[in-house]
Amino acid sequence: MTDPRENGFDLNPKYDAAGLVTAVVTDGLTGELLMVAHMNAAALAATRSSGKATFWSRSRQALWVKGETSGHTLAVRDLRIDCDQDAIWVIADPAGPACHTGARSCFYRRIGPDGLERVE
Amino acid sequence: MTDPRENGFDLNPKYDAAGLVTAVVTDGLTGELLMVAHMNAAALAATRSSGKATFWSRSRQALWVKGETSGHTLAVRDLRIDCDQDAIWVIADPAGPACHTGARSCFYRRIGPDGLERVE
Repeated sequence: MTDPRENGFDLNPKYDAAGLVTAVVTDGLTGELLMVAHMNAAALAATRSSGKATFWSRSRQALWVKGETSGHTLAVRDLRIDCDQDAIWVIADPAGPACHTGARSCFYRRIGPDGLERVE
Repeated sequence: MTDPRENGFDLNPKYDAAGLVTAVVTDGLTGELLMVAHMNAAALAATRSSGKATFWSRSRQALWVKGETSGHTLAVRDLRIDCDQDAIWVIADPAGPACHTGARSCFYRRIGPDGLERVE
C-alpha cells in the first residue's frame, strides 16, 4: 500500500460529490456513539479552529455549530480521520443531550428481532 | 415531535438516493470506533440474520461480508439506529484488525495542528 492518502500524514479529505465527509461523534468520557453528521471543508476548518464540533447541515444548506441554539455544544477532545480520509471521528465532551429529541445519544433505539426497542 | 420514524418502534431506515444508510462500527469491548461503511436493505438483513457485519461495497457494487476473505469478521453484539433512521450503529467483537491496512481501527491517524499523526 503506497497510497499517500492512506499512509501519509497530509490532511487530504476525500469529499464526496456534495463536498462532504461523514463525521462520527463519540463521547470522550463514556465512548458512546452520540451522532453522525457531515462536514464540508469549512465545517472541518471551523471545528479545528474553534474546538466546537461544527457540521454542514444538508437540510438547511448552512454551517451548523452544534448547540449554537440549544447550548448543547460538543467540545472537541480529539479528531481522527480514517484510512481513505472520507470519515472523521470527533471525540467530544457534550454540554448536554446530543440528540434534538433530548436523548443523550441519537442512537436511543436498538434494532431487535421484532422491531425497535428503546435503550438507556 | 410526533414523527413515527423518530419516536416509533418500527424499523424504517431512511435510505439515500443510492439505497444506502451509514453504518458505524465500534468495538464492543473497548468502545473504539473501528470503521464507517454503508448498508443497503440486503446488507442490513444479512447482518441481522447472520450476526456478522455485512455492508454494501460502493466500489465493488456488491454485498460485502466484512472479513469474508481476510477472516477478520465482526461479530455483532448489538445494533442501534439513530433518530432519523439514516445511520446504524454496529457494536461488534472484531476477529482481527478492522482496517484493510492492518490497523486495529481505520481511524489510526489524529488530525493535529500541522497535519496527521499516527496514533496507537
